[in-house]
Amino acid sequence: MSISTKHNAKIFRDLSIQGHLLLPNVWDAASARIFEAAGFPAIGTTSAGIAYSRGFCDGQHISREEMMHEVAIIARAVNIPVTADIEAGYGSSPGDVTETVRGVIEAGAVGINLEDNAHKKPLSLFSISAQAKRLAAAKSEGERQGIALTINARTDVFLLGLGTDEAERTAMAIERGQAYLAAGADLIFVPGLLDPRAAQDLSNAFEGRLNLMAMPGAPAASTLFNAGAQRVSLGPSVMLASLGNIQNIAKELQQTGTWSTIEARFFGFAEAETLFKHR
Amino acid sequence: MSISTKHNAKIFRDLSIQGHLLLPNVWDAASARIFEAAGFPAIGTTSAGIAYSRGFCDGQHISREEMMHEVAIIARAVNIPVTADIEAGYGSSPGDVTETVRGVIEAGAVGINLEDNAHKKPLSLFSISAQAKRLAAAKSEGERQGIALTINARTDVFLLGLGTDEAERTAMAIERGQAYLAAGADLIFVPGLLDPRAAQDLSNAFEGRLNLMAMPGAPAASTLFNAGAQRVSLGPSVMLASLGNIQNIAKELQQTGTWSTIEARFFGFAEAETLFKHR
Repeated sequence: MSISTKHNAKIFRDLSIQGHLLLPNVWDAASARIFEAAGFPAIGTTSAGIAYSRGFCDGQHISREEMMHEVAIIARAVNIPVTADIEAGYGSSPGDVTETVRGVIEAGAVGINLEDNAHKKPLSLFSISAQAKRLAAAKSEGERQGIALTINARTDVFLLGLGTDEAERTAMAIERGQAYLAAGADLIFVPGLLDPRAAQDLSNAFEGRLNLMAMPGAPAASTLFNAGAQRVSLGPSVMLASLGNIQNIAKELQQTGTWSTIEARFFGFAEAETLFKHR
Repeated sequence: MSISTKHNAKIFRDLSIQGHLLLPNVWDAASARIFEAAGFPAIGTTSAGIAYSRGFCDGQHISREEMMHEVAIIARAVNIPVTADIEAGYGSSPGDVTETVRGVIEAGAVGINLEDNAHKKPLSLFSISAQAKRLAAAKSEGERQGIALTINARTDVFLLGLGTDEAERTAMAIERGQAYLAAGADLIFVPGLLDPRAAQDLSNAFEGRLNLMAMPGAPAASTLFNAGAQRVSLGPSVMLASLGNIQNIAKELQQTGTWSTIEARFFGFAEAETLFKHR
């Protein structure tokens, strides 16, 4: 682990504590460099985006080794801190999580998202105590490596639509989030939750340590921050918008053999070369 | 080399002979699948796009091994034929080209673009006889492997602005192209040339075996085909348009913390998952 990883870990922890961090998620060196050049102070990876770019479905179809290789390519491409989406840790035991976190730090990333989705059929979550042990393992490995790893504990209560109604989901997410914070998590990530009132309830229960995921149709970042989110990340949305853009390009090529969709938002070749000079 | 590579080589050769092939260039499994799903019968890779996605400048800064790994990921992601941009072959000798072509076929691709740019400073081209030997080496390796490799011989006369004027460039490109065809090339690729009248001169000199590269500002594909192009490819343009789109997304996030650029051309998550089911 390099000095710059240690340094970036501190920067990212400060950004996380300070709050109102709008965090774009990237899938390759190019998307990473665009956000760095645009002035973002940190980026996250998106497991879905990386999976698609490598030819897999999302949800741990990619191996730990391949995912860590992609995280390393992204971390090497930028100077700003990178936090890694490690899905459910590529294994269910605390030891699996330890091994993945070791890989994350070796790759040069300084934070993780760890899901409680057990990736089983029918879809289910790890028990609260099992997930707490997995989070504690992640925290221990960061300490063992001497870096201030920022742990974003994701609960999929809302994403999987568990419970019978919003109130029950909120209660379940609060119970899980509080246990995860006690186990060493720094933030609780609740994708699928975008209602500002419910977000405020969770933020209150987590002393503000809440990460929400924006997507099309979501309230603006300022609304989500006002509702108590400390971090707003974008999950797969930038990748999905890229796929939509490429699809529009493909349709125009098929239909008229013209390039207006390409021309509309072009990036110069010389400018692109500059993004990677001296790297 | 698999049966499907052999099969795809025949399909791609037929598409190349039949002419009027509009060939998009991709850089990862996701961009590859979008074009396949849109109905394109074949795709090419873009060395620039792959370089940026991996964190390098274009122009053989990536290693042969890494480039072949990326070509394999793309070829594995689709059923349609893939032709590989192998830059100047990752080495200057015919033996280097042989080794790269072996890697291309192992990766599952069925065609190549091979440049005559020697990647030296000051910028210069391989001599005509040296490049002819390199092309012959590529052709021999295809035959040795038993596949109908389609060889697109690129001359950088126009791209590097060699010669004193358009007439001299045209004469140089014709001399080189005819020598390359005699050495075993199937098509002559002249990036940087977009004037329909000059294209017609080259097409006549090459018996129609001409590949032009479209970019913003280029005439429509139909105009380029009417000017005698047998293939029109897109080089790095789709990647550059993707970078431009991501840059627009980044600017909106920075300025207003909103997602309208993402929303404008979104691709559904479920639809994205479907792109990679059973792969």
